Amino acid sequence: MPRESEGSTGAESLVSAATEAGIQVCFANPGTTEMPIVSALDSASGLRAVLGLQENVCTGAADGYARMADRPAMTLLHLGPGLANGLANLHNARRAHSPIVNVIGDHTSWHLPFDAPLTSDIEALARTVGTVRTVKSRETIGDDVHDAVRDALCDRVVSSLVVPADFQQERSATSGGTASGGGADRRARTDDLDPGAVERVATLLAAEPGAVVLLLGASALTRVGQRAAGRIAAATGATLYSETFPARTERGGGLPQIDRLPYFPEAAIQALAGRHVVLVGAERPVAYFGYEGIPSLLAPPERVHRLSAPHEDGEALLVALAERLGAQGALVAPAAPKLPGRDVALDGAAVGAALAALVPEQAIVSVEGGTCGYPFFAASHGARAHTSLTNTGGAIGQGLPVALGAAIAAPDRQVVALQSDGSGLYTAQALWTMARERCDVVVLIAANHVYNVLRTELSRHDHQDLGHQAGTLTSLADPSIDWLRLSTGFGVPAERARTVGELADSFSRAVDAGGPHLIEMAL
Amino acid sequence: MPRESEGSTGAESLVSAATEAGIQVCFANPGTTEMPIVSALDSASGLRAVLGLQENVCTGAADGYARMADRPAMTLLHLGPGLANGLANLHNARRAHSPIVNVIGDHTSWHLPFDAPLTSDIEALARTVGTVRTVKSRETIGDDVHDAVRDALCDRVVSSLVVPADFQQERSATSGGTASGGGADRRARTDDLDPGAVERVATLLAAEPGAVVLLLGASALTRVGQRAAGRIAAATGATLYSETFPARTERGGGLPQIDRLPYFPEAAIQALAGRHVVLVGAERPVAYFGYEGIPSLLAPPERVHRLSAPHEDGEALLVALAERLGAQGALVAPAAPKLPGRDVALDGAAVGAALAALVPEQAIVSVEGGTCGYPFFAASHGARAHTSLTNTGGAIGQGLPVALGAAIAAPDRQVVALQSDGSGLYTAQALWTMARERCDVVVLIAANHVYNVLRTELSRHDHQDLGHQAGTLTSLADPSIDWLRLSTGFGVPAERARTVGELADSFSRAVDAGGPHLIEMAL
Repeated sequence: MPRESEGSTGAESLVSAATEAGIQVCFANPGTTEMPIVSALDSASGLRAVLGLQENVCTGAADGYARMADRPAMTLLHLGPGLANGLANLHNARRAHSPIVNVIGDHTSWHLPFDAPLTSDIEALARTVGTVRTVKSRETIGDDVHDAVRDALCDRVVSSLVVPADFQQERSATSGGTASGGGADRRARTDDLDPGAVERVATLLAAEPGAVVLLLGASALTRVGQRAAGRIAAATGATLYSETFPARTERGGGLPQIDRLPYFPEAAIQALAGRHVVLVGAERPVAYFGYEGIPSLLAPPERVHRLSAPHEDGEALLVALAERLGAQGALVAPAAPKLPGRDVALDGAAVGAALAALVPEQAIVSVEGGTCGYPFFAASHGARAHTSLTNTGGAIGQGLPVALGAAIAAPDRQVVALQSDGSGLYTAQALWTMARERCDVVVLIAANHVYNVLRTELSRHDHQDLGHQAGTLTSLADPSIDWLRLSTGFGVPAERARTVGELADSFSRAVDAGGPHLIEMAL
Repeated sequence: MPRESEGSTGAESLVSAATEAGIQVCFANPGTTEMPIVSALDSASGLRAVLGLQENVCTGAADGYARMADRPAMTLLHLGPGLANGLANLHNARRAHSPIVNVIGDHTSWHLPFDAPLTSDIEALARTVGTVRTVKSRETIGDDVHDAVRDALCDRVVSSLVVPADFQQERSATSGGTASGGGADRRARTDDLDPGAVERVATLLAAEPGAVVLLLGASALTRVGQRAAGRIAAATGATLYSETFPARTERGGGLPQIDRLPYFPEAAIQALAGRHVVLVGAERPVAYFGYEGIPSLLAPPERVHRLSAPHEDGEALLVALAERLGAQGALVAPAAPKLPGRDVALDGAAVGAALAALVPEQAIVSVEGGTCGYPFFAASHGARAHTSLTNTGGAIGQGLPVALGAAIAAPDRQVVALQSDGSGLYTAQALWTMARERCDVVVLIAANHVYNVLRTELSRHDHQDLGHQAGTLTSLADPSIDWLRLSTGFGVPAERARTVGELADSFSRAVDAGGPHLIEMAL
């Protein structure tokens, strides 16, 4: 290695450009081809490296971080297989419109044609979840990082940067060699938005009182956005729904009651029937799966209108719409949830109600899985002010990594992961990183030892009596997973709860103690 | 669903065609879009469904199964994210030339244009690891399965079949509706091979006595193939090497000593210097990674000759070559390994030597990781007859799934997984399936709590003194993983061993008890 050169290595330029662009955290599982970047992280300051034991932990954490920090984290992944391991949570991040700068090392450029064992088509994999650029020379690395960050921030995408190992190692002929530009704008500005949209929606609300649904996506689900939506609803009789799976939504603390659009298409179609649907930061409502005899579009296209796209500032448009309508009324806060009786045995409803009563002020709740997730949303309108993060893309195994990333982004807030057991087993390795980084996360595992959603789907297929193989493929029993052992094996203390009282006590102990804790809820 | 129809569903045709083509096992983690196939498995006989808790367990198990059964298993994966989760071990399977019929459900075909949350480019992902076909109508499913199996078997590839949910559910207008053809040929036949190749190699061996290396891949590393190679070496002075990472190699039981080509390129170049290299079922030798100043090709192209390609019958060609040369001599069997002293503390060398002495007759040893893997290969030439399976593609997390698949393929043989801890954590969920399926696997975890290969690579980069971040990113300590808790959490009994004696005792107990057991070896 040309130590005699005065210039910095490409890896040093990469780290320096990322830091200058405002990136503060790198969720990493590097390999041989990323060692120069690992070395560069050692000599840089301001970019914190967080190790995940498997890449889907890293990418899911980057998603959770982006949702809470509203800035991208960087990932550092090893070649095509490392990227492949993290693709499922990048799929979810794509659906969440989370900005991520996804850095993948590749073989030394001149070694690629020889098809060594670890060679694969990295760009083809990365393209399935966002934009991709591959570094073509040492001297462009700083600019390439800058462009990747700009893509991630402006378009709110997963922006992948493939960096061959030789360009990481090479030293610049000139000193410095970092990107020219500064940080990029976080989000498309309000004044870029269609100025006629507010007027058109105001006209629609006036013309069809009581026959309009406002469907709110993450950019509209801020506290300010929801209050504006609540005033609009009070003034016009409009109905409010959030997306079924918002990337991030503020909840409780006196916000108006806004239900999620139902998951199953029959119920969603019923909820929207005969109404106009105005999209505020939400995608048009589409059935999650295609079922025989049920339309894919949950509302007729001619009755769907767009106030703002997901990457636009839905909050600002709702505020403008409320002002335009003169909607200034006071909001009715939902009633505060009460803890069910202490002796009540835990099931989905009891857990949802209990957590709604227990959730601390300013908590962040990462929700994955329906068994407790739906009841929690139904019960938590009146809870203390908190933030919910959901599984946006349906690739399971995102709840624990997202909780981890949220905890890294917001170290002053309590994080709760409300996690179904089947999906939790996909990325249980996230527990270890929570322990290493001393994250304040309480993990609540809904341990019913079954892929319950699949049994529901089988019954929808008229498959009422489970045979041996269908039973086997939807059961997590035989043997039962012992989450206490898994959790302590990864370094996270754990308890088991069977009743509301036990759950409440364990939860309080965990919050008071700080750091990560797991509670296996026996359902 | 049209229950009144007399015809079978597409899913039933799929299962029936797969069974007719000789497929006996399906490693699965299905979701909503695969429920018709799950239903069909219930009503079919002869196709055993094995659940993995994450898809990389399923695909790795299918690889291990193919290596031992020499027939493909089927996988059943849920949409793009399910495939993505299993891609890393499909990458390894591609490098192993393992036939796999990789079935992926997709959205109902008419639902795809609406870009529902779980929609992604499944074909783009699948193309990175092999061939892909997407079912376009109910009526072709049987033929599509037949073609997919043919690809997998004849070309020894990962053959992906994407099956939209509606075609799985639809009933055939005609009854039956399974594929016309029968099974496909397992492997290209000997009489398809270039008949001049044996003659050319014989001439080379005669012309350059002592200056030829035979580099053997998996198809040549059968017991018959290795004996033929040993006789050729004895008769001509040729040197024998196996690939560095063979998909499968027979070992011990009187076979001649055949070393693996060294991993680091300097040593491999040295081993091949000044010699002709004859490839028998091996790829041309290429450096694993590209290092500054070291060529990618480990031998000059003009001195590399091919006797057979990886998918051809290397064993038959070696036998033909030995006959052509009249090489009939007796082989010298390596000396049997001895157990190191019982009080010797475990390190890589002690574990390698101990396992070489302990490995039971006809065992299958899945090896992942260098710390104990290299010493085991160095020590096990003279061991009892056994089979070794290695990580062919470098995507870590394949050792435990491959051991699982091998155990399903060969239930009458003892399986041993010699597994480094860092890579083992990628797919530790495989332990649960071993417990559920009562597989006779002894898992030996080399617990040094460090990504040792990366520390070696950092030192190659002149990064001698680990800083905080490089230390963090290559360490699995803080907190230390407790494999006993992880293993028992997944239902596999576990013990810890610190000395050769403890390892030997634990190993014997595990083998005697049957079923899966884990031994955490404290290095």
